[in-house]
Amino acid sequence: MAHSAWKSSPSELLKVGQGFVIADVDTSSTPGIEGSKKAGEKILEANGAELNELQERLWAESRYEGKRSLLLVLQAMDTAGKGGIVEHVIGGVSPEGISAYAFKKPTKEELSHDFLWRVRKKLPPPGMVGVFDRSHYEDVLIGRVRNLAEPGAIAHRYTQINEFEKEIVASGTTIVKVMLHISEAEQKSRLTDRVERTEKRWKYNPGDLDERALWPQYQEAYQLAVQKTSTEDAPWFVIPANHKWYARIAVQQLLLDALRGMKLDWPQVDYDVEAEKARLAAS
Amino acid sequence: MAHSAWKSSPSELLKVGQGFVIADVDTSSTPGIEGSKKAGEKILEANGAELNELQERLWAESRYEGKRSLLLVLQAMDTAGKGGIVEHVIGGVSPEGISAYAFKKPTKEELSHDFLWRVRKKLPPPGMVGVFDRSHYEDVLIGRVRNLAEPGAIAHRYTQINEFEKEIVASGTTIVKVMLHISEAEQKSRLTDRVERTEKRWKYNPGDLDERALWPQYQEAYQLAVQKTSTEDAPWFVIPANHKWYARIAVQQLLLDALRGMKLDWPQVDYDVEAEKARLAAS
Repeated sequence: MAHSAWKSSPSELLKVGQGFVIADVDTSSTPGIEGSKKAGEKILEANGAELNELQERLWAESRYEGKRSLLLVLQAMDTAGKGGIVEHVIGGVSPEGISAYAFKKPTKEELSHDFLWRVRKKLPPPGMVGVFDRSHYEDVLIGRVRNLAEPGAIAHRYTQINEFEKEIVASGTTIVKVMLHISEAEQKSRLTDRVERTEKRWKYNPGDLDERALWPQYQEAYQLAVQKTSTEDAPWFVIPANHKWYARIAVQQLLLDALRGMKLDWPQVDYDVEAEKARLAAS
Repeated sequence: MAHSAWKSSPSELLKVGQGFVIADVDTSSTPGIEGSKKAGEKILEANGAELNELQERLWAESRYEGKRSLLLVLQAMDTAGKGGIVEHVIGGVSPEGISAYAFKKPTKEELSHDFLWRVRKKLPPPGMVGVFDRSHYEDVLIGRVRNLAEPGAIAHRYTQINEFEKEIVASGTTIVKVMLHISEAEQKSRLTDRVERTEKRWKYNPGDLDERALWPQYQEAYQLAVQKTSTEDAPWFVIPANHKWYARIAVQQLLLDALRGMKLDWPQVDYDVEAEKARLAAS
């Protein structure tokens, strides 16, 4: 199988543990695999079918009262490739098995509730692969950098997040939390590319540069977030993402590992197979 | 381009017009194209990128206040291949651009409202490709066959549907309504396959045979539905679907035709490109 190209699993190599320092990550590295764009595309393609089948097993289980689901949380600085992960990795799964949601700036109604309120409503139903393109982590990222709440309230959110995720995991959702990590120089190159190309220009807005100017503050906020919320229940994975091909196969492998770990068998049906064959033959 | 394999567009060949008789359709035919499973798979693959790009243009437009969207309505007898259309045709579009919803038996809350109430809530937002796997047409299909409402109420629903769809189209949604049409014998073969294979067995339930026993009544209900609701605004297409490869490329081509007809250009951005290039260079 193509995924044997991995020398070690990204689930181990990229997990945020004790003493993790985001500034020490080489954003151009490709831990666990020696490859190239071309090899990466082959792996992505080759493993797509398994990802799709595992989701179908998860769905089948849910038809027989299974309660399990999978949730991919994607966080990153602008241009780091969240959209590409959704398109090229999650895109391998049938659309009816996906519950993807892109969190935007909170609405007035959302702001009138606890910060986790809008997130709970978008959790994947049983049988589904959920994707959060941005998430409740924005409330300790831009929330922290832009002082969108009292410092004490923000400091308390890490604990609230850990409790929230513990509860979700206990109810049957496996959470895979991914930060796509690019360098400041790589972002400059990608933003420039957006402005220069007609078919990408609409993705850029001048406010992107205002956030970029706060790069060190964001890195500090990411460091705190992954350090304080990488738990046994819901660990963080920081993925070097200057090479898009690497980030994509790494996320794909994390999802495959998570789904394989769920030991998904086809459900035992609750009808008499032989009797139904006979009815069918007579129909 | 691969799609030039079409001799005539399925948008013309398969459209339900005056005098259409569902019983006259050969469910094993492949109107407009001479092909094979293999050729069909190639066409599907080759045209996927254009479908994806057209959706991206639709999305880009919506970022600049565009209000347009596309809605595919899928109706069919059991096993006719709705799921395969979603997986293999819609699956070519990035998940964040898709709003897919499978309508089930209405809940108590849904039944307490008008039959279109739950449908309105699932219409695709601007920029998205929506898919209804079953739809408000169930209310004139199983609703009619199983007498789930007063005959007078059901008779009135065709008019309500036409008014509803006219309103949706006027607000910017292009609707493509598809019935996947298989033969009774083909359904028997597919149901048998489901019961016989471990990985498909969960898809079958004994109630499927009870619906199958009402095949003629369902065909009559489909005839009435497509005849009464194939309008200028929102025509029906009845697609011979005994050959899955044919049904998939036919639906793909209907969607391509619909999106091409929307003349989707990349939006003109509202910022000063040269000024942003300079800011970026200095960042």
